[in-house]
Parts: sequence; structure tokens; C-alpha cells
Amino acid sequence: MAKKYTEKYVIPSYECDRSDYLKIPTLVKILIQISGNQSKSLGVSDAYVHTFGLGWIILQHDISIKRLPVAGETVTLGTEAANYNKFFCYRNFWILDEEGNECVTMETTFALMDLKERKMGSVLDEIIAPFESEKIKRIKRGEKVLPVEEITQSKEYSVRYYDIDDNQHVNNAIYLDWMIDVLEIDWLTEKRPSSVSIKFNKEIRYGEVVTSSYQQDEDNTSRHQVTVGEDICAEANITWHS
Amino acid sequence: MAKKYTEKYVIPSYECDRSDYLKIPTLVKILIQISGNQSKSLGVSDAYVHTFGLGWIILQHDISIKRLPVAGETVTLGTEAANYNKFFCYRNFWILDEEGNECVTMETTFALMDLKERKMGSVLDEIIAPFESEKIKRIKRGEKVLPVEEITQSKEYSVRYYDIDDNQHVNNAIYLDWMIDVLEIDWLTEKRPSSVSIKFNKEIRYGEVVTSSYQQDEDNTSRHQVTVGEDICAEANITWHS
Repeated sequence: MAKKYTEKYVIPSYECDRSDYLKIPTLVKILIQISGNQSKSLGVSDAYVHTFGLGWIILQHDISIKRLPVAGETVTLGTEAANYNKFFCYRNFWILDEEGNECVTMETTFALMDLKERKMGSVLDEIIAPFESEKIKRIKRGEKVLPVEEITQSKEYSVRYYDIDDNQHVNNAIYLDWMIDVLEIDWLTEKRPSSVSIKFNKEIRYGEVVTSSYQQDEDNTSRHQVTVGEDICAEANITWHS
Repeated sequence: MAKKYTEKYVIPSYECDRSDYLKIPTLVKILIQISGNQSKSLGVSDAYVHTFGLGWIILQHDISIKRLPVAGETVTLGTEAANYNKFFCYRNFWILDEEGNECVTMETTFALMDLKERKMGSVLDEIIAPFESEKIKRIKRGEKVLPVEEITQSKEYSVRYYDIDDNQHVNNAIYLDWMIDVLEIDWLTEKRPSSVSIKFNKEIRYGEVVTSSYQQDEDNTSRHQVTVGEDICAEANITWHS
């Protein structure tokens, strides 16, 4: 059984939207932060991973939302590096409320990138062993993300200085900022997301201008893409309820 | 003596820039958050203030930065509602490192707004008494903020959905996002701010497009303004060092 790691967290007001619900990009940020905290606590911090010439990259998040935490609420953030194969690591995350009810789960697919060659490296024992993850043979596929086929609406965003993290590219959570912001305010005010699947294809750098586009499906799903020129850098599907 | 309130805080990576320094807008957000936490702990939460038809507004922040906290660092955030007069409340904030050294201080001028009339209300005893602030006669002026006289560079920003807080206007920290982002990346990478004074004149709402402009002074100071059409919504001066 993979080692579990949890932290208490009080949802700050400034991480909430105008209706006091936790912002979706922040939901991803706080979960990814605790995976970093677990790694550090097990002696396999990002700095240690860098000594092998490797860095973690995120390929996909599959988020399921029963209830979005609200401003001032105390929650428990949890994670475990569930299992892995030669190239991919699969991590589970969860957010519990004070009564122990599951509010949010997230499954994330990570890989290791060779920082010099800029291509995928294989998962090293030295890096993965401390998590006591299960080694599996098969490649797990995340949720299928349907592509945007007909654009309902688009908006351009310049990459901002603060969008760049210490990997010198746009932080993975920022893509969700652009994907949410392009939606109509009435939609955002009346609806809540119940699931988000986002797939990352290509990193984005400072100085680039991205286009965030979405397609409104009839079944309360929005399909999203973030493009730079001809490149589709990320795609997502979000399902919504009233 | 005004009651002091402190909280420990671990600087998350996702609140840091590409060089691992705490983002300036976040610095303001985490401090304002603890003033809200103090108010709640003393039974005078924002919700209680609203029962008088009033809401807190921020008029000015004067920030002095000896050293910006870095990712992973544990700091102590502190505040006290130092003193007040008929219309204004003056609050002190500080950030200490683990050895107790002062990294950052901030002085903020608050006022109470009559939410119906949209004009300033006077400071009520029921709201201020629990803080044990000193009542003073004089009007304290924050640092003088020099206006932009000749624009070096400007950039437009559309207000985003997540820029709006539960007061239904742009959160005060977002103005600093726009003010920082308009600067050259080389400047931002090589320099650190040593002081920031920001004065708020007019609220900004969803759907508006703002222009963030700055003037580069010869003495390592940048003067900033955020405008909507003819209105100057906020002005700031930032001093920098290498």
C-alpha cells in the first residue's frame, strides 16, 4: 500500500470566487503542493530529482467534485503515489471536509522529463521507492478528453510574469484560469463544475500569447483548448451542474 | 495597546515567482486574510459589520520589504489594529522569519463604507472596541504617492472572473498583479522591491478593461497607475534594489 500523506488546510477568502467557492485553479495548486510536501518529507524533493537530471511533469488531471469547499472551511488534503510503470506515475488526491466526507478527488498522471534532452525519462527506483507505490505493467489512460470541434467563444491571454513557475514555464494550474475565464459570467455564477479532465500537451513560456477557446455541448459539458498558434497546448472537458 | 494577532504560515511554491520569491500580490492577500481572521476571532467578522450596513474598504497600503520570504519558508504573519479616528482605521502588519527577524511590514488605512449610500461611514464603537485600538484625533497620511507624469510603458488587462471577490469588485491585491506585470521581465528578474505604496481611488468591476501604465524614474523607483478610461483607479510607487 502506498504511503498516504495529509495536511489540514483552511480555505482562504482570497482563493475563493465571488460566491465564496474555492477557485478551480487553486484546488489543483493546493493538491500539487502537498504532493511536493510528501516528496520532501520522504527525502525525494524536486531538488533531489534534479540531481538525476530529471524533473516531474504533469500529463493529466482527472478531477471529480462532489462539493467545492468554501471560504473559511477547514479541510484535509490527502495524497498517495498509488502506482507506476516504466514511464508514468499515478497519484491520487482527495479533499475531505471536517466530518470526513469526500468533497473532491483528483487523479494525476506524472512523468519524469530528462531536463537536458527535453524528453521523457524512465521512472528511477531511487526516486519512487520511498512512496511504496505499487509497480504495475499496464499503461493507465486518464479520462478521454473530447477535442473542441466547433468554437463557441475564444479569448486571448498574454502570459504574465507571475504565471511562470520555477520550471520557467507556465504553471499547470494557470491553464485552468484561462479555460474558466473564457466562459460567460452567467454560466459561472449559476453553475458549479462536477468534473474536470485536463490533458497537457505542450509547455508555454513567458512572452507567448495563448488563445483559450471552448465549445458548449448540449449536455452541460464544455470542451476547452488552449492554443499557441497552431499548437494545442492543453485540452479539457468540464461537466457542470446547477 | 492594541491586541496583536499572529499566525504561522508556510510559503507555498505556487505563491512564488520563477525565482522562488513570494509574489507581491500574495504578500498583501495573506496579510489582509489574517486581519479578517483576527476580526472573526474577536466576534466582529465582515458578516457582523454588514449588519450595520457597512463594509471595510482599503484606501492605502505602505509596504516595506527587507527581504522577501521564499518558497517553503515558515514565517509568522502578525497584525494589530493600531489606532483610529472618526473615519479611518490604521492597521499594522508584519512578517517575521523563523529567527524572529522582520522581513516585511505593511501599514494599511481602512475605512467603513455605507453599502447603500456608497459613501464613507464613521467608525462605530461596536465594530472597533474589541481590537483595543487607540483613538486618535489626527488624520494620518500614508506615504505620498507620486503620480505618473510621463508613461514609459502601458498594457491592457481585461478583468477576469476570478479577479472579483465577494465584495463584487476587483480584489485590492489584483491591482498589484497588473502593476508588476507591465514591467520588463529583465527588471523583474534582476531587481527586488524594497517598498511599495499603493493608493486606491475607485473600484473596478467585472467586464471592465484596465490600462496599467508605469513611469521609470532615474532613482530605481517606478510610478504606476491603473486606469479605466479617464479614471485613475489606483496609483503606486515601488522602489527597487538589485
